[in-house]
Amino acid sequence: MAGNSYGTLFRLTTFGESHGKGIGGIIDGCPAELKIDFEAIQKDLDRRKPGQSAIVTQRKESDEVQFLSGIFEGKTTGTPIAFLIANLDQKSQDYSHIEAAYRPSHADYTYDQKYGFRDHRGGGRSSARETAARVVAGALAKQLLKGISVQAYVSSVGNLKLNIPYQQLDLASAEDNIVRCPDAAMAKKMEAYIKDIRKKGDTVGGVVSCVIKNVPVGLGEPVFDKLHAELGKAMLSINAVKGFEYGSGFEGAAMKGSEHNDLFETGGRTKTNHSGGVQGGISNGMDIYFNVAFKPVATLIQNQETIDKDGNMTTIMGKGRHDPCVVPRAVPIVEAMAALVLTDFYLRNKTSKLY
Amino acid sequence: MAGNSYGTLFRLTTFGESHGKGIGGIIDGCPAELKIDFEAIQKDLDRRKPGQSAIVTQRKESDEVQFLSGIFEGKTTGTPIAFLIANLDQKSQDYSHIEAAYRPSHADYTYDQKYGFRDHRGGGRSSARETAARVVAGALAKQLLKGISVQAYVSSVGNLKLNIPYQQLDLASAEDNIVRCPDAAMAKKMEAYIKDIRKKGDTVGGVVSCVIKNVPVGLGEPVFDKLHAELGKAMLSINAVKGFEYGSGFEGAAMKGSEHNDLFETGGRTKTNHSGGVQGGISNGMDIYFNVAFKPVATLIQNQETIDKDGNMTTIMGKGRHDPCVVPRAVPIVEAMAALVLTDFYLRNKTSKLY
Amino acid sequence: MAGNSYGTLFRLTTFGESHGKGIGGIIDGCPAELKIDFEAIQKDLDRRKPGQSAIVTQRKESDEVQFLSGIFEGKTTGTPIAFLIANLDQKSQDYSHIEAAYRPSHADYTYDQKYGFRDHRGGGRSSARETAARVVAGALAKQLLKGISVQAYVSSVGNLKLNIPYQQLDLASAEDNIVRCPDAAMAKKMEAYIKDIRKKGDTVGGVVSCVIKNVPVGLGEPVFDKLHAELGKAMLSINAVKGFEYGSGFEGAAMKGSEHNDLFETGGRTKTNHSGGVQGGISNGMDIYFNVAFKPVATLIQNQETIDKDGNMTTIMGKGRHDPCVVPRAVPIVEAMAALVLTDFYLRNKTSKLY
Amino acid sequence: MAGNSYGTLFRLTTFGESHGKGIGGIIDGCPAELKIDFEAIQKDLDRRKPGQSAIVTQRKESDEVQFLSGIFEGKTTGTPIAFLIANLDQKSQDYSHIEAAYRPSHADYTYDQKYGFRDHRGGGRSSARETAARVVAGALAKQLLKGISVQAYVSSVGNLKLNIPYQQLDLASAEDNIVRCPDAAMAKKMEAYIKDIRKKGDTVGGVVSCVIKNVPVGLGEPVFDKLHAELGKAMLSINAVKGFEYGSGFEGAAMKGSEHNDLFETGGRTKTNHSGGVQGGISNGMDIYFNVAFKPVATLIQNQETIDKDGNMTTIMGKGRHDPCVVPRAVPIVEAMAALVLTDFYLRNKTSKLY
Repeated sequence: MAGNSYGTLFRLTTFGESHGKGIGGIIDGCPAELKIDFEAIQKDLDRRKPGQSAIVTQRKESDEVQFLSGIFEGKTTGTPIAFLIANLDQKSQDYSHIEAAYRPSHADYTYDQKYGFRDHRGGGRSSARETAARVVAGALAKQLLKGISVQAYVSSVGNLKLNIPYQQLDLASAEDNIVRCPDAAMAKKMEAYIKDIRKKGDTVGGVVSCVIKNVPVGLGEPVFDKLHAELGKAMLSINAVKGFEYGSGFEGAAMKGSEHNDLFETGGRTKTNHSGGVQGGISNGMDIYFNVAFKPVATLIQNQETIDKDGNMTTIMGKGRHDPCVVPRAVPIVEAMAALVLTDFYLRNKTSKLY
Repeated sequence: MAGNSYGTLFRLTTFGESHGKGIGGIIDGCPAELKIDFEAIQKDLDRRKPGQSAIVTQRKESDEVQFLSGIFEGKTTGTPIAFLIANLDQKSQDYSHIEAAYRPSHADYTYDQKYGFRDHRGGGRSSARETAARVVAGALAKQLLKGISVQAYVSSVGNLKLNIPYQQLDLASAEDNIVRCPDAAMAKKMEAYIKDIRKKGDTVGGVVSCVIKNVPVGLGEPVFDKLHAELGKAMLSINAVKGFEYGSGFEGAAMKGSEHNDLFETGGRTKTNHSGGVQGGISNGMDIYFNVAFKPVATLIQNQETIDKDGNMTTIMGKGRHDPCVVPRAVPIVEAMAALVLTDFYLRNKTSKLY
Repeated sequence: MAGNSYGTLFRLTTFGESHGKGIGGIIDGCPAELKIDFEAIQKDLDRRKPGQSAIVTQRKESDEVQFLSGIFEGKTTGTPIAFLIANLDQKSQDYSHIEAAYRPSHADYTYDQKYGFRDHRGGGRSSARETAARVVAGALAKQLLKGISVQAYVSSVGNLKLNIPYQQLDLASAEDNIVRCPDAAMAKKMEAYIKDIRKKGDTVGGVVSCVIKNVPVGLGEPVFDKLHAELGKAMLSINAVKGFEYGSGFEGAAMKGSEHNDLFETGGRTKTNHSGGVQGGISNGMDIYFNVAFKPVATLIQNQETIDKDGNMTTIMGKGRHDPCVVPRAVPIVEAMAALVLTDFYLRNKTSKLY
Repeated sequence: MAGNSYGTLFRLTTFGESHGKGIGGIIDGCPAELKIDFEAIQKDLDRRKPGQSAIVTQRKESDEVQFLSGIFEGKTTGTPIAFLIANLDQKSQDYSHIEAAYRPSHADYTYDQKYGFRDHRGGGRSSARETAARVVAGALAKQLLKGISVQAYVSSVGNLKLNIPYQQLDLASAEDNIVRCPDAAMAKKMEAYIKDIRKKGDTVGGVVSCVIKNVPVGLGEPVFDKLHAELGKAMLSINAVKGFEYGSGFEGAAMKGSEHNDLFETGGRTKTNHSGGVQGGISNGMDIYFNVAFKPVATLIQNQETIDKDGNMTTIMGKGRHDPCVVPRAVPIVEAMAALVLTDFYLRNKTSKLY
C-alpha cells in the first residue's frame, strides 16, 4: 500500500529511479489471449521519449521496453506481465550539487523528510522518468480497449490557449507537430514560445486535453470509484499536474441547470454533453473529455536561493537536462493513464450483472 | 471492489439509498483509544442536513446518527465502527413519475443500463443523501487529526465569485451565514441570487474552496497515491463535482517556472505556496488549499423532454424536493472527504520509516 | 485494512460486538438482479443460532436479520447490501468478573495488549457471535452459486471420529440430528459425549468436514490466491480453528506420487481425487472436500488460575453461557465461508479471458 | 487482483515463468533505511536452489538475484524494490511432450481451461520456480524483523516422522544435512529413503514444521485477517501444500478444554502453549509453531496414462528434471512466507493505537 500500484483488476505496479538500473513494472490481471502489438507500444514510448525534438529534454534514452513474462507466442497468458526499460544515459554527476540542497518546488525536501533518506540522483523515484512505465502499460491497455479511441493533445502553453471545441479539431493532426497541438497555426506559436522560454533558462506550464470516444455505457462504480473520480486521480498522479476538470468543468459551476442539463435524444444519446460522457459516475456512451493542468517544470537554468539539509540558506545552480515545457511529452502519458482507468473499469463492469 | 469503500488503512464503506430504510457505513481501521465527541459529529451532520435554511431542499430529516459498534465507554476500541442514519421523510410517491423515465443529467439512465434494474425512488443509491455517511466518518476523522484544521467555504455561486485570497478571509465566519461564504457582503448577494433561481424553478452551480492548516510534513505516497491525487479523487467522488484544482491550479498552467517556484526559507517553509502544500505528492507542511467545482443540480421544477425505458421521447414534470444550489450543503462534505484522505495518509505514513 | 473485510470482488465487511447493539455487515460487489430467498438466509442463521438444542449455549437470541439496503422489490440492485442482527439477550453483568482478569486461551489478553483497551463484555469483538454476519452473507452467496452445493457436517467430536469417506454418507442427513453428523449411530454417541462433557463443566473440540459439488473448472487465481489457500484462510479465520487440510491433506504427505496422482479419464474428470478438486490452485471440476479442526471452547464452568490486568495471579470463576462443543453450530459457518470464497472467485474468474 | 500479490502494507508482487526470461518481483511498502545484507538473501536462495544436493532436481540455475531499484547506498529508500533472477538452464524441448497432453495432478489442465491457453514449458507460471521470488522477499523481510527468529525444518518424509517436540531439538542443526531434518539419525534415514524413491522414478511427500520465536504481542488483525489465518493462506499458497495446522492443530480437536487451555503465568506468558502463540488471531508473545503438509511431486519418471487437449486418452512419458521430494527445498520457502506474513502484520500493527 505504499502507492506504487494503480488499478484494482487490471493492476500496474511500477518501480525504478531516474538514475538506477532502469524502470519498469508488472501488470497483473490482464486477461489471456490478447495478441500484443509490440510496435504500437514502442511507438507510444517514443512519443514520450526524451530527445525526440528540439523542445524537450536532451537526455538520450532509447527507452526500449523488454517484456520479461506473461506473454507466450505473442499473446498474453493471463499471468503477470513484467517489463523493463534500462536507464542508459545517466549523468548522475550532474546532480551532485543537489545531494545536500533541496531544489525549490521539487520533491527533494518532502522525500527526505518522509523517508529520512533519498536517492538524490535526478530526483530518484520522484522523477517523471517513472511515467515511461505508465506509457507501456497504457499502450497495452489501449489494445484491450478494442474500438475505443483515446486521444490527447496540447490545448494550451502558458497563455497561448486553443479556444476551439474539440469537435472542430482534427485530433489526429496533433501528432503532426512537435508540440502536439492539433491546430497548425497555434502549434507554431507554441513552439516558438517554448524555444524562447528555453533560451531564457525558464520553463512554462500548459494544459493537455483528452477525448475518449466509443466508450460503452456502464463503466464506473458508485459511489467512491466514479469513472471521473478515478480519471481525476489518475491524471493528478502524473508529475506536475495541478488540476483536472471534465465535461463542463469549472465553467459548469457558473451555469444554470436549465442550461447545463443534457437532454436525451431517442435511443439514449444526449443533445449536449456538458456531462462529459459520465452521469452519476458511470459512462453514458457519449464522448468523455477532460482537461489536465500542468505547472511549469521546476528545474530552471538559473541560480535559485534555497536551503540545504540542515535548513540553512544556499544557492543552487541551474543544471541538469530538463524540459522547458512538459505538455508535449505529457500527451501519451495522459492517454496511458486514461486507458488504464478504462480497462480497469471495463473488467470491473463484467461483474455488475449476474450472468 | 464495487466502489463503495474509501481509504486503505482508515477505510469507510457506505450503504443506503435515498428512500430505503436508512444510510450508514462502517469505518474499519480507526485506531483504538480515540475519545469521541458525538456532538461534534452531529454538528457536522446538521451543517449538511436538508431543511436547515431557506436555500436548501425542504426534505425533513433529523439525520441523527446512531453508532452500533466499535465504541466502548466513549472511546474507540480499534474494531469496526458501524453507524446508521434512518430515513424518515420519504415521499417515495413523488418519484413514481420517474419509474419509467430518465431524468436528464441524472444517473437514472446509466444505473439502469449498468445493472439492468434500479431503485428509482429519489435516485436510490445515486442520491446525494449518501454523502451524510461521509460526513459522519469525516467528522470522526477530524477528531483523530488533532491540531490539523480543515475548513471549507463557498467561494462562488454561478457568476458570483469571491476573488479574495483565503489568507485575507476569516474562514470561520463562513458559518455565520446560510450560504457559508466567509464574506458577509458577497454572502448576501449569493443568498439573494439562489432565492431568485429557486423561484424560477432553476438551479445553479458553484465552487467550494478548502484550506487545511498545520499538516505534518510527509503525508502522501509516491507515485500513484500522491496526496493531491487522492484529494482529487475524494472530491470528484462527491455528487455533482466537475473539477478539482489545488495550489496554483489551472492558473498555474499559464505561469513560468521562475514565477511559480516556491523558494525556501530557513527551516523548510516556503515564501510563496503555489505548490498548495504538496511537493511530489507529499505534504510539505505549508497550507493545503484547493477548489472544487459543482455543477448545477439537475432536478428542475420545470418540464423537460426526456426518454423512457424503451428509448422513446416523453416529458418529465418538475417535482421532488431538491436544492437550488448544492454548495452551501457541500461545505461539510468537502471537509469530510478531506479529513478522510488526511487520516488515511497519516496512518499510512506511520510505516514509511523503520522505527 | 484492519481485517474486518473478506473477499475482493464479492466483499463482506462485518461489525459488532457480543454485547453491543448488534452485529451485521455490508456486502459490496453483489451483482444486480439476484432474487433473494430471505427464508433460506434465516434458515442458515437458525442453524447457527444459540439455544437451538440441548448441546449448545442457552443464550436466547432470535437472530433475525434485517436488510437495510441494496435490495429492491426482492432483487439485488448491485449496490451495497447492509444488514443488521440486533443483540437481545445480553447478560453483560455475567462478565464483570473478567473486566480485570484475562480468561485463559481467550483473546482478552491479546486484545488488551494490542489496543490498550477492550470491550470485555462477552469477549466483545472476539466473540464468535460475529460469525452470524458471515452466515448471512454466506447464505446469500449460496444463492448466487446456482447449481453448486456446499454441505458441511461434523466428522469428529473429541476422539469420536467418523471414519467413513464422504461418498458413502448421505450428507443431507446431517441436519437430522442436533450434532449435525450424517451417521445416526455416531451422532448419538457424540451427543451423549457432549452432554457428559457439559455436565462436568468441561468442553471438547471436533472436526467439521465440507464437500462442495458441481464447481465449474477455472476458479482460483495463481499464485498467492490459490483456491485452496483462500479456503484455508477463510476457515482459519473462524473462531477456534486450529487446522485445515483439503483433498488428501496431511495423509497425502505420507504418500508416494505413484499412489497420489489423479489419473485423468476421457473428458477431464479424474479417477481418484486426492487433489480435492483443485490443481495448481484452480478448481478442476471434481468435488472439493476439506477438514477443519476446532479446538475445545476455552470457557469452562470450572475455576481457573489466571492473571489480572497488572499481571498478577488471580482466580477466575467459571460463568457465562457457552457451548460445550462448537462444531454443531460451526457447520453453517464453514459452509458460509466456503460460499463466500467460491462466489468471489466466480466473479474474479469472469475476467480471466478477454471476452 | 489476479492473485500475484501478497501482503497489504509490505506487499510482494511476483512474475515469471519456469522457461521464460526469468522470474522476479516488486516489494512495495518496505520502510526506508533498512540496511540490506545481500549475502543473507543469496544464502536463502541457495538453500532453495536446484542442484544443491543429490536429492533434489538437477536443473542448473545459479539463481543469482539482481536488485533493480529501491536500494541506494545499501539501504532501502522506501520506494519499490524490484528484483530479477534470470532463467539460465531451460531445457524447454524436454517439455514438448506435454504441449498437447495434460500431466496428471499438475496444473496443465486447469490453466488451459481457465485461460484458454498456456505456456506449457516446464509448467509455465504454475512451476514452483516461482517460489524463488518469495525467498528473495522473505529473506529481506527477515532482516526487517530484527530479533524475531523464523526457523523451519523437515519433520517428516513419507512415513518417516520425527516425533520429537521442537523444544527438544537443535533447530539450527537442520542445516547440517541435505534433508534439513534437525535429527541426524532421522535425517540419514530420510535421505536414504528419498534416494531409493528417486531410483524407482517415484516421489514422496513430507511435512515442514516451522517455529517463530520472540514475536511481539499484538500482531494479527481481527476478524478475517487473523495471524494464523494469514499464515495458513501463505503456506497453502506454496506449490504442493495440502494442509496447515498450528499449535495443537488437528490433535487439539480431540482434546478437552480443561487439558487444552493455556494457563497464564505472572507477566503474561503461559505455562503450556497449545495456542501456538496466537489467541484470538493475535500473537501473545509465546512461540508460534505450525506444520505444513506437502503432497508428493506429481512428475514421475514413469509412463502414465492421461488425456490430451481434446480430452482423448494418451500416454505421457516420464521426463524432465524434478525433485523426488520437495520438503528439503521447501524449508526456506516456508520461512520466507512466514517472514512476509509477520512483516506485514508488524507494519499493520503500527496503526492499531493512536500514537
